[in-house]
Amino acid sequence: MNFVDIIIKKRDGKKLTKKEIAFFVNGVTDGSLPDYQISSLLMAILLNGMDAEETAHLTMEMAHSGDMFDLSSVEGFKVDKHSTGGVADTTTLILAPLVASVGVPVVKMSGRGLGFSGGTIDKLESIPGFRVDVTEEEALRFGRKSGIVLMSQTDDLTPADKKLYALRDVTGTVDSIPLIAASIMSKKIAAGADGIVLDVKCGSGAFMKDLESAEKLATTMADMGRHVGRKVTAVISGMDQPLGMYIGNSLEVMEAMEVLKGNVGGDLLEVSLILGANMLLLAGRVETEEEGKALLLEQIKNGKGLAKFRELLVQQGGNVHVIDNYDLLPLSPAKLEVKAEKDGYITHMDTARIGRASQETGAGRMFKGQPLDFGAGIVMKKRAGDAIATGETFAIVYSESEEKCRSAADILKKAITIEEKQAAKQPPLIWKIIRQED
Amino acid sequence: MNFVDIIIKKRDGKKLTKKEIAFFVNGVTDGSLPDYQISSLLMAILLNGMDAEETAHLTMEMAHSGDMFDLSSVEGFKVDKHSTGGVADTTTLILAPLVASVGVPVVKMSGRGLGFSGGTIDKLESIPGFRVDVTEEEALRFGRKSGIVLMSQTDDLTPADKKLYALRDVTGTVDSIPLIAASIMSKKIAAGADGIVLDVKCGSGAFMKDLESAEKLATTMADMGRHVGRKVTAVISGMDQPLGMYIGNSLEVMEAMEVLKGNVGGDLLEVSLILGANMLLLAGRVETEEEGKALLLEQIKNGKGLAKFRELLVQQGGNVHVIDNYDLLPLSPAKLEVKAEKDGYITHMDTARIGRASQETGAGRMFKGQPLDFGAGIVMKKRAGDAIATGETFAIVYSESEEKCRSAADILKKAITIEEKQAAKQPPLIWKIIRQED
Repeated sequence: MNFVDIIIKKRDGKKLTKKEIAFFVNGVTDGSLPDYQISSLLMAILLNGMDAEETAHLTMEMAHSGDMFDLSSVEGFKVDKHSTGGVADTTTLILAPLVASVGVPVVKMSGRGLGFSGGTIDKLESIPGFRVDVTEEEALRFGRKSGIVLMSQTDDLTPADKKLYALRDVTGTVDSIPLIAASIMSKKIAAGADGIVLDVKCGSGAFMKDLESAEKLATTMADMGRHVGRKVTAVISGMDQPLGMYIGNSLEVMEAMEVLKGNVGGDLLEVSLILGANMLLLAGRVETEEEGKALLLEQIKNGKGLAKFRELLVQQGGNVHVIDNYDLLPLSPAKLEVKAEKDGYITHMDTARIGRASQETGAGRMFKGQPLDFGAGIVMKKRAGDAIATGETFAIVYSESEEKCRSAADILKKAITIEEKQAAKQPPLIWKIIRQED
Repeated sequence: MNFVDIIIKKRDGKKLTKKEIAFFVNGVTDGSLPDYQISSLLMAILLNGMDAEETAHLTMEMAHSGDMFDLSSVEGFKVDKHSTGGVADTTTLILAPLVASVGVPVVKMSGRGLGFSGGTIDKLESIPGFRVDVTEEEALRFGRKSGIVLMSQTDDLTPADKKLYALRDVTGTVDSIPLIAASIMSKKIAAGADGIVLDVKCGSGAFMKDLESAEKLATTMADMGRHVGRKVTAVISGMDQPLGMYIGNSLEVMEAMEVLKGNVGGDLLEVSLILGANMLLLAGRVETEEEGKALLLEQIKNGKGLAKFRELLVQQGGNVHVIDNYDLLPLSPAKLEVKAEKDGYITHMDTARIGRASQETGAGRMFKGQPLDFGAGIVMKKRAGDAIATGETFAIVYSESEEKCRSAADILKKAITIEEKQAAKQPPLIWKIIRQED
């Protein structure tokens, strides 16, 4: 097989066969294809697209490019969840214990944050002692015992995706629905999930800025479920303001615990319940989303969700005392209250910019591998639509230095639009739920 | 400037600025841009195109990526000619002496053959002693004295084109009109031409198989003339059969000399006269194409064209005795007559396939750098439309071995379609002439 012919085929808008896609992914994995040929094909895929069948083949070849995590020894229907990334989106830390606490196992690999978007693994690492590097053998043992594992991706999972992602990042080929879908789904499939709930974020703080592209990605991945033999539900949720009120690593852990304790509600709780209920639906644990939400809410009230979170900390070496004493979590020393400079209503939040303010505090990464300040971040005091008065605090910034606090505050001020008149309507929290047809 | 942003801009169908194109070409030339980024942009250019202004900027940046050949010390309007490549297309060896003999200087850099297409430099090298590697200083001296120089490209001409071409070849990004146009025109401009006559071949033995794509390329390059301050005429000529009757290196030199002697006419002479007349038109030496053709034909009759060819050989060390004794030119020892296997008319010639038969004899290159058998090739005995009888010879193959003759003959037989009924019409020799508007 000649790879140039494969490039030309896609360049000319033709459909690639399973064999051709396998040749491509194998060549990426074993390093036999030069990067300049791979990037040429990636651009052709971005511009000419891939249909559902091609995308499914690409996904499965990528999934099989490294180790496949075999979860069969953990009893039950294993449901994974993936978010395309947002700000103050700490649903995993809330829904994983809740779902596991009703007997549906969650053995989940997560990623690190990059750019304006945070990552579950970083948040977990802000808990003193918590071990995210869990071996496969440990994960299976933990999964069988507690029904919950939150861990980082093992090194030998989807090596083709790692290589392709690094190349896409420097060749202008990130924004391709089939490539994004294959990247997400290949990892989830290799990680052993039977069912996957996708949280496709849409809005000013998401990669998908508009409903159309979010819907396209969601539909592509939901459709793929049929082709690859996995149950998939895609939830399109709003990211036009930070989901929770706390942005950062230890700060988001605190907020998650507050939700699990039943002390905090709002959008973060609502999205966690909807995603969790859809996981239960896929697992066949409940019959309706409403039933699922009620069941999970009950696990907050009866303390079983928090107990499962405690079990997770014990299991992976995290200091369990943080649950009752937040002072045991890091919090950066410098603090600055950010105040409104005029009266009015918050009509718009540029959420990616808020994410960038969080990067500025040290809580987020500018580049891959950058060390984080786990105690840094932002506590938001207002939500979109709220009234605000001159001098009123709308956010508190935490960082290692006052200088950093000030520059984060400057970014924050630009991210918030205050107008005299209330905005007609705020974008919805849940845009759409795309369920796979049977 | 961030190159990824430039890739994304073209990926999104936007127009690149002169500065961005300069950044790209400089990065290609100095090696600072990695190949995987270059190939990604090349694919985006292929799929999203470039307008006339972008293509002109690309052309000029590529032209200036290396040395610019300064022909100002050679008096007169210097006209160059370029063919997109065909089979038995030896017009340069005919028109260059003819045009130079009427006082319009032709200082011309040519290329080598590749694939089914032959190259002027290879043909010249089949003349014992002929030196194609002429220094810049020599070229100017020769040009001032004789008004004719046929030489290979100097090493430091358009290095960006050399790198881009090599990369395009292995990344499926050859077939892009703006990239082809910029490659051709940048070389011609760097080689110092004031005016350029382009012979855009169209048909089964050309890179452009149909009139539409040939016309698009021709128009792109003619349009570019205005943007880059050069006079350009593009002739779209037919390549649905070999242009001359001789295919190979020494064989094509023989046919060119026969034309210059007035012994041979036909399509090869006709296209040479039309291209040459258009060169004279651009140089302002004649007022009409007809006047130009008549003038050049006169140079055949009065022997001045052949005399200029003789002067060229003397000047560059070629054995001038070949003109009167073709036995001094190489001719391969094995010979095979290829005969028709049925009665009828030759309705179609797959000319690229005939070019491949020529490669098989050793006259053409399968890959870059492959050494040639200068005495190998094919003498065609029939033209498209001719009647033919079973057992009648339609071609004679020359090669170093009988085995190679046989395999070339097998390819030739498949290239020729013989049918009972005459084809309604043969494609025209000249499809169209696109002249730049003033």
